[in-house]
Amino acid sequence: MERTDTKLKEGSVGVVQVQTLKLKLPPEGFKLEKGGVLPEIEVAYERCGNITPDNRNVIFVCHALTGDSHVVGRYENDPIPTGWWEGMIGPGKGIDTSRFQVICANILGGCKGTTGPSSINPATGKPYGSQFPKFTIGDIVTVHRMLLKQLGIERVAILVGGSFGGMQVIEWTIRYPDEIDKAIIIASAASLNSQALAFDVIGRQAIVDDPNWHGGDYYDCDHQPTSGLANARKLAHITYLSQRLLEDKFGREKQQSWIEADPAFKKAIDRNFGTFFQIESYLKHQGDKFTNRFDANSYLHITLAMDEYDLAERYGGLDKAFAGIKAQVLIVSLSGDWLFTPEQSEELVTAMLGQKKAVSYCHLEAAAGHDAFLTHIHDLKRVIRAFTRDNADPENSYKPKNWELRHYQKVVELVPDGSRILDLGCGDGALLNILRQNHNCTGNGIEIDVEHIIDAIRNGCDVLMEDLDDGLSMIPDNSYDMVILSETLQTIRKPRKLLQQILRVAKEAVVSFPNFACWEVRKHLMLSGRMPKGKQIPFEWYNTPNIHLFTLKDFLYLCSEDHIKILDLIPLGRGFVEKTLLGLGLKNLGASRVIVRIARDS
Amino acid sequence: MERTDTKLKEGSVGVVQVQTLKLKLPPEGFKLEKGGVLPEIEVAYERCGNITPDNRNVIFVCHALTGDSHVVGRYENDPIPTGWWEGMIGPGKGIDTSRFQVICANILGGCKGTTGPSSINPATGKPYGSQFPKFTIGDIVTVHRMLLKQLGIERVAILVGGSFGGMQVIEWTIRYPDEIDKAIIIASAASLNSQALAFDVIGRQAIVDDPNWHGGDYYDCDHQPTSGLANARKLAHITYLSQRLLEDKFGREKQQSWIEADPAFKKAIDRNFGTFFQIESYLKHQGDKFTNRFDANSYLHITLAMDEYDLAERYGGLDKAFAGIKAQVLIVSLSGDWLFTPEQSEELVTAMLGQKKAVSYCHLEAAAGHDAFLTHIHDLKRVIRAFTRDNADPENSYKPKNWELRHYQKVVELVPDGSRILDLGCGDGALLNILRQNHNCTGNGIEIDVEHIIDAIRNGCDVLMEDLDDGLSMIPDNSYDMVILSETLQTIRKPRKLLQQILRVAKEAVVSFPNFACWEVRKHLMLSGRMPKGKQIPFEWYNTPNIHLFTLKDFLYLCSEDHIKILDLIPLGRGFVEKTLLGLGLKNLGASRVIVRIARDS
Repeated sequence: MERTDTKLKEGSVGVVQVQTLKLKLPPEGFKLEKGGVLPEIEVAYERCGNITPDNRNVIFVCHALTGDSHVVGRYENDPIPTGWWEGMIGPGKGIDTSRFQVICANILGGCKGTTGPSSINPATGKPYGSQFPKFTIGDIVTVHRMLLKQLGIERVAILVGGSFGGMQVIEWTIRYPDEIDKAIIIASAASLNSQALAFDVIGRQAIVDDPNWHGGDYYDCDHQPTSGLANARKLAHITYLSQRLLEDKFGREKQQSWIEADPAFKKAIDRNFGTFFQIESYLKHQGDKFTNRFDANSYLHITLAMDEYDLAERYGGLDKAFAGIKAQVLIVSLSGDWLFTPEQSEELVTAMLGQKKAVSYCHLEAAAGHDAFLTHIHDLKRVIRAFTRDNADPENSYKPKNWELRHYQKVVELVPDGSRILDLGCGDGALLNILRQNHNCTGNGIEIDVEHIIDAIRNGCDVLMEDLDDGLSMIPDNSYDMVILSETLQTIRKPRKLLQQILRVAKEAVVSFPNFACWEVRKHLMLSGRMPKGKQIPFEWYNTPNIHLFTLKDFLYLCSEDHIKILDLIPLGRGFVEKTLLGLGLKNLGASRVIVRIARDS
Repeated sequence: MERTDTKLKEGSVGVVQVQTLKLKLPPEGFKLEKGGVLPEIEVAYERCGNITPDNRNVIFVCHALTGDSHVVGRYENDPIPTGWWEGMIGPGKGIDTSRFQVICANILGGCKGTTGPSSINPATGKPYGSQFPKFTIGDIVTVHRMLLKQLGIERVAILVGGSFGGMQVIEWTIRYPDEIDKAIIIASAASLNSQALAFDVIGRQAIVDDPNWHGGDYYDCDHQPTSGLANARKLAHITYLSQRLLEDKFGREKQQSWIEADPAFKKAIDRNFGTFFQIESYLKHQGDKFTNRFDANSYLHITLAMDEYDLAERYGGLDKAFAGIKAQVLIVSLSGDWLFTPEQSEELVTAMLGQKKAVSYCHLEAAAGHDAFLTHIHDLKRVIRAFTRDNADPENSYKPKNWELRHYQKVVELVPDGSRILDLGCGDGALLNILRQNHNCTGNGIEIDVEHIIDAIRNGCDVLMEDLDDGLSMIPDNSYDMVILSETLQTIRKPRKLLQQILRVAKEAVVSFPNFACWEVRKHLMLSGRMPKGKQIPFEWYNTPNIHLFTLKDFLYLCSEDHIKILDLIPLGRGFVEKTLLGLGLKNLGASRVIVRIARDS
């Protein structure tokens, strides 16, 4: 079964190499969206995994802010693999190179092989420096797409990116809807929030304030703007990690090697108001490491492109932005991420749902923070593996089991064929798949359990992670024909509010629930003097998820209070007594479980 | 009644002036804790409100990182008051100058009148600059205490401070326990967390990297290290505000005046990779404003003193640190504060409770962030006003009302005189006060509602804000003799866990609860087929806080499961039927309410 997918032996992709391709540009050069022109563009890229003869199995990875084309694998002379997403990509991994060819390219304006401010300006024979034109995320996407076209790849099977890379995925999915099958957007957003902008503002200021920056023309100078760049990096690095991670990893521990250093070193620390905290030495290390591998001008340009990216502004609203997308989308947010917050991911989901697009959303527990998509990928890998599964392959298509068909029969009968449905608490998507496959329905499931979500995605469902106690806050008004809520209402903290929300997002709903007034319950409480337990309510009072017990009569009373119409009512009894009572028309006494179809009474 | 306290007409303190006092030092000067010596120290301070003849009504305010002595009032030549805590202090305000004299002094190392790096070094006749010695929060406190002694003030009625000021309050309360009646610690901590350290590390680096800093000896130079100081301030300023506040206040809005500026200005922005976002112009404004009023060396010294402050390290643990304090303490945290987090305040509370100290804790909703203690003080003012009330005044002492004495009689009978108790859900502290005044008890209440907390504090109780669903996480093991939980168990999300927690923090507990098996409930469900409602359970099923209904029998069963002893059991019935049933010994049927005294069965 599919569950074993994740147990496939994971392998390494072996040796990779950077390749460089010169884009075929028109004679006037590459016109950038902000008005500048580049006479020539080279792109550095890497590939691994075999490509199919039709070139249709390509996963293109959009790298993050300071990433590069070396996403996975070992360079010829390196003893070990050094790619930045090594854990994610390889045979049997989240992105499976035994099925896909993975391509990753350094972005425009970078400093790792693709044309950027440190590249030679053919007009002068010197590095561009201050002459390098400003560019946008749109330009970055255009360059990558030109690269793929020149490689003979007209269509991307899966586009994936985290953070700044996710912004590229969003833009590409919108601009070229017919060229992408699936898109994965991790820890990203439609634009940076105000706090993130603020940090970038300070980071760039640190660089331009560095006297060695020289307005950007420092390449021929003795000194480079390393202290400004290091300070910018240190600051950004804090935002990549959660407060909790820093506390757990460093706390207020001191750096022993600094404490034991020679007196001159310690005196210099003291003179410069340094400390011996590990967090200080760690940040220093991060800053130094970064200045060794990155160019200050590239950092200025790329962060500016990120800051200025604003999907809503560009397209006149997120709804309009997503109106034309065709890819099946997976959006992932991380719990500890305060740079690209889960709320910002959810904003993308809401906008896509408003356009009735095929979108799944998964909020992963990742206490480490934003960088967790690079460093803490256990669940992310499994979600991506489920999403990248080829459900068109008959081998993989989900077939409803007979007991599932029986179990859901009464509910399915109440759902008109072809409905767009929202199944609250969809589990592994069994009901959704019955409705999709046998009744031509579309729509989403909602789940809170990540294991169920992975199963449902693997089974081909578009599923959204949300806590029903939050009241469907991610779902736009009137975005479904019908909501299904099965055996869950009594577990909700605010059941009245949820019913209202259900009839906000759809005109109708099918709701099933246990009836606390059924014969068995009354008998139990009357005679034993203890809270009832049984097949429908199999919990002790102190650990039951059923926190709002109610009777059929209670439910009907609330419906009449809240102007909810009952369109159908199916009382279900178990055993002789209940069935006899139902036969006598005593629904509230005879039904241990009830299914109702309800609608707004407007 | 006391509620009207907050409606007293608030007034202004009128004109104030800075005064300077030269500390009387021994011939060898003031020895700093880190080894340095200052030959002389001047302290700038301000006073307002009348002092009583016994000098016993002084509130000393410890200012925050970059504050100064001008806490409230108008300077002679200013048209309006300009103090940094204007809203908090004045006649009828949170800190009431019609009752107290408020004193605030600029800290050692500052740049607003108290000796600091920009002061003249008497040995050289030039500013100290790089020669100014490093100091600690302990030194700051010592200087302030010397100031008060020279002013003839031997004892402080109330010591109050937020943030860095709160650290001074903590240190003072520990060092001089006999000289402080009450202490108020707002948005503070026993030490900075790792993330906060990280930001400070970068801020200081920005200053020492500024070529105009000159190792600290810039006072005679043409240029001052303003760009480094501005960048440090910008960064710190972000941490004073919550992400939400920045988003609401600035979002991604553009600064119209910059957009409309002259082409040269816009070109400079473009060349320096600036943006037109309001957040950038706001930060620039904050940076510029700060460099006009603050000295870079003072900033370096003071932030270092803050970073190095570590109560646990200094005293060998927080428990030891607080072992000797005698002041009644109020600790306040702010919900949107990510610099000094609520968890850090709670750590202080836990340590004090572990030492059985008199401490109240209030977590205020303050979405604005850390700075909210300066800017959003509506509730803070009321909490402080309640805490600063003079409960020794017979006018103010709380007298239990007759109906309260009757209502709590059965519970009170189960509590031995002189017990240290924890009353969960203590409301306005009525039961606590009965036990304190008539039965010589001590201890705390726990509440979640801020209005109740303010009432309870005003009534002289030490009350802690905590959500019982979080399971008493703030309370150390065995810190009370008895816990009281009245009519609340059925509203708790994990009642079994709460019972376990109750018997973790105390050996015994008195618990009262409604019995779902009482005659009225059974009759109701049996005959009407709807969920019971009545005096004990007056809610609809969909909005009831009673989410875990249970019977006396259920409760006794759980106790036996969990090795909980029943020491007393008092069944309470209402009306003829229940009382008759109880008379027949049918507790589970006859009791609509039950009081039990329980203990660990060990």
